[in-house]
Amino acid sequence: MDIKQLSLREKIGQTVVLLSNPVKETKLGGSLEGFLEKYPVGGFFVGAEIIDEVMTGGDKEQVKQATAAYSAASRVPLLFASDFENGCGSMVSGLTKLPMAMALGAAGSGQLAYDYGKATALEARSIGVNWTFSPVADLNQNRFNPITNIRAVSDEPELTAAILEQVIQGMQDGGLAAGAKHFPGDGNDYRDQHMVTTRNPLPMEEWLSNHGYVFQRLIDKGLYSIMTGHISLPAYQKKSIKGMPLPATLSDELTQQLLKRDMGFRGVVVSDALIMGGYLKWFARGRAEIECFKAGTDMMLWPGLEYFELMERAVETGEVSMERLDDAVSRILEMKRKLGLFDEARKVAEPIAEQETIWVRETARRVAEASITLLRDRNGLLPLRREEIGKALIIGISPNEEDIGELKGLTGVFAERGIEAEFRRNIWYEELEKIEAEFDLIVYAPYMRPHRPMGPMQYSAEEASAIWSSLTVAADKSVVVSFGSPYMFTDYFEMADVYLNAYSHVPATLKAAVDALFGEIPMTGKSPVAL
Amino acid sequence: MDIKQLSLREKIGQTVVLLSNPVKETKLGGSLEGFLEKYPVGGFFVGAEIIDEVMTGGDKEQVKQATAAYSAASRVPLLFASDFENGCGSMVSGLTKLPMAMALGAAGSGQLAYDYGKATALEARSIGVNWTFSPVADLNQNRFNPITNIRAVSDEPELTAAILEQVIQGMQDGGLAAGAKHFPGDGNDYRDQHMVTTRNPLPMEEWLSNHGYVFQRLIDKGLYSIMTGHISLPAYQKKSIKGMPLPATLSDELTQQLLKRDMGFRGVVVSDALIMGGYLKWFARGRAEIECFKAGTDMMLWPGLEYFELMERAVETGEVSMERLDDAVSRILEMKRKLGLFDEARKVAEPIAEQETIWVRETARRVAEASITLLRDRNGLLPLRREEIGKALIIGISPNEEDIGELKGLTGVFAERGIEAEFRRNIWYEELEKIEAEFDLIVYAPYMRPHRPMGPMQYSAEEASAIWSSLTVAADKSVVVSFGSPYMFTDYFEMADVYLNAYSHVPATLKAAVDALFGEIPMTGKSPVAL
Repeated sequence: MDIKQLSLREKIGQTVVLLSNPVKETKLGGSLEGFLEKYPVGGFFVGAEIIDEVMTGGDKEQVKQATAAYSAASRVPLLFASDFENGCGSMVSGLTKLPMAMALGAAGSGQLAYDYGKATALEARSIGVNWTFSPVADLNQNRFNPITNIRAVSDEPELTAAILEQVIQGMQDGGLAAGAKHFPGDGNDYRDQHMVTTRNPLPMEEWLSNHGYVFQRLIDKGLYSIMTGHISLPAYQKKSIKGMPLPATLSDELTQQLLKRDMGFRGVVVSDALIMGGYLKWFARGRAEIECFKAGTDMMLWPGLEYFELMERAVETGEVSMERLDDAVSRILEMKRKLGLFDEARKVAEPIAEQETIWVRETARRVAEASITLLRDRNGLLPLRREEIGKALIIGISPNEEDIGELKGLTGVFAERGIEAEFRRNIWYEELEKIEAEFDLIVYAPYMRPHRPMGPMQYSAEEASAIWSSLTVAADKSVVVSFGSPYMFTDYFEMADVYLNAYSHVPATLKAAVDALFGEIPMTGKSPVAL
Repeated sequence: MDIKQLSLREKIGQTVVLLSNPVKETKLGGSLEGFLEKYPVGGFFVGAEIIDEVMTGGDKEQVKQATAAYSAASRVPLLFASDFENGCGSMVSGLTKLPMAMALGAAGSGQLAYDYGKATALEARSIGVNWTFSPVADLNQNRFNPITNIRAVSDEPELTAAILEQVIQGMQDGGLAAGAKHFPGDGNDYRDQHMVTTRNPLPMEEWLSNHGYVFQRLIDKGLYSIMTGHISLPAYQKKSIKGMPLPATLSDELTQQLLKRDMGFRGVVVSDALIMGGYLKWFARGRAEIECFKAGTDMMLWPGLEYFELMERAVETGEVSMERLDDAVSRILEMKRKLGLFDEARKVAEPIAEQETIWVRETARRVAEASITLLRDRNGLLPLRREEIGKALIIGISPNEEDIGELKGLTGVFAERGIEAEFRRNIWYEELEKIEAEFDLIVYAPYMRPHRPMGPMQYSAEEASAIWSSLTVAADKSVVVSFGSPYMFTDYFEMADVYLNAYSHVPATLKAAVDALFGEIPMTGKSPVAL
């Protein structure tokens, strides 16, 4: 399909990734076809991390049916994007949850990284999803950063680039467009761009050998797309409003000049979500989307439908040049071409073989096992011996109900060994004093990850009380395994005799961590961040 | 009263500050007299910040009656201590809430600081309280510190020392023993000693010109008591357990050597609460209290009653020397003597004249007014003009119900001007877009202070969403006044056109802030911390 075959409205539509549920939107056009004729968008977002309104219920069959139906209704092949940061299973039920990206950093294996990308692609394409807003290419250089943490590979550019080159190769070999985020690089501010515009504070020279280095390596490797963040890079920017440098999503200096001109990026630039506070505070609604597009953004994530009329007017008045629009559309069509969306009779879902599914799960296991990182075993308590443990107490510490649910999976892993394990969410030390004699082993299982809930990566209230109480009783039969933030060690467990980082609470990791405690697998992971 | 008149049990008792409600404990001795004969404690804690079980209901008349009754039942005059960090009103209802200590830092006036201390003493003595675990003498040098913040004067030692010298002079002139905390100085770690032992990380030379400098100045001024924290000072300490330096509460190096020997402190050393995680993780229960006492602690905050028998055994076996015990008891009796507890027929409560009460409230007003700090008024929106504001919207942002209740007081302050003000707790931007036209003024009133709840000094969940939405709509008629943490400016409101720090949400400060917005008082406060 050639750009010349597209009307102005279709060109504008190509630059839109829609969040809204098309089934609801069909009211607007009387049918899916009618809707897509009126609003010929370039793609849809499948699932949502922080927003209730999702495309479908999230079951893999429903997604597969939806992507097929929408594709059939669209004249131009559609992109279906999701946040498949750790495989597809966290966004779509029935698919596989891979460990978080930081597990790859701990494992330090290029082959595992490639397989991780490939595994994600196989399952994504099996439900018609052809684009992922991942990998997270940020460097978690500030322990207080509330966005990246275990979603990032490391705090170190060389390791991050080496791992992510393989991840994107695996993804794109599998027919899934990778979208590295968040340009110009998150992980250094302590603030959250959902709330405010954040900063990459590095001087240019340092930026070029850190975040800039990572993005350049991925660009040179053939990365299809990059997501810009509501993040500024003051060292590069001259323009400001109210004395503050604009975020990349609104800055032609960062997107048009630095990313596209200086770094030579020829793929698709997609904005981070246009409902975030770090974007909303700059311009009046309507004005902002135009500024975002003019800055060099090729696709807008979740604009309102009024964007179509806004852009039509902006093109008519010449505020948005046809050249800028054609640049965006050409990049989008080229990505669709690379994904084979034109060639293969617009076939979207590609069946996954049973053996491939098994291989995806094996990949989860292999990454999990290679990631487990032992930071301390002071008195040689490890390996635990099955015969010495009659009953274990697992103390899950997380502010999020769903995460507590995942951690409860540990009781099953112990049960597989014939060990009875009792799970408690938090515990106060006076209670622990009363019951500790019943147990031969106490496992502290803290879990903290970005945006569960939105806010700092440290515990408050009940969870803070659980930390208060931790290791005050029976410390000599206690082990700590952080299944989330690797900084739990210095944050809360400096006095632990036995401490492991596991980076994820996906089932494969829960099993690997327990296997490691019992000495059934070696602990070869290396901390990918300074602790 | 001479130390020779005390039995061993009475000497041990002198070293105890009891939390438990004596009314309950009378069961143990059949009566208050019986209880105090069996457990002849040195003092009681009145009220509690984070613990439910309080001495009384907290009303000033109840406290006055209780201190009188307990005093009458005790052979040795009793200390009654509380955390009167910002006057007495936050701990005991019916008394006056002064602004937080950081307001004194912003005001920068020695006279106001003296009056602040004196006002606290007048109200404290009026209910029989003769000791306060304040002022907070820490330096808030780490914005992420979850303990000090607006409870501290500043991040700067010279200003802090100058202000606190006057505060303690005012307190002690008024018959209230000051207890500066938390030696060796909090405010630099990002962690919380309720959860873990924290660190003062400064090299000795820096410590001596920062926290050490402040404590030395206060000691030289005649400070009666110092509270040690569950905080280490690795630069000074040689001893460690498991490679970690002990907290001051358990470290003879810090308490016996540094504080008492090197710095020449001859007053009472009281420990921070012995139920905190930063203390509980070091030794088995029972063992810890002995180690704490041996380290040089003169009074133990909230030990269990078994402490009496533990100490009796420790003295009998020679583990605790009579010399150490006599050192502690002498310091305690000397402080009681200085407070006049022996001379004045053990009179505890000293009536406060109505004029004095009026003066205390005036002091609150004067401190509040002198503290208001204008950080930005970009477009000259200030002063607000009464006649231009028909209706105001106040958006309170705090995770704590009680703090929201305080902030609601702002509606009354606007009402006094005849301005209708609507109060909302948090708001999502889509809702704000719908209603903003109804209002001529939007006041963002964020509030965050340590331990509301325990955890980091930043917003999560609903409050994070409110920050996300803030200033996305009608920014040109919006003003921001932080009534808590001064760091809200850089944390969340860098884009605000009008921003004030007010350091407190006590009634006097609410009024002063609004007075300042309308130009009725000048804004002369200077930020006492780097922003």
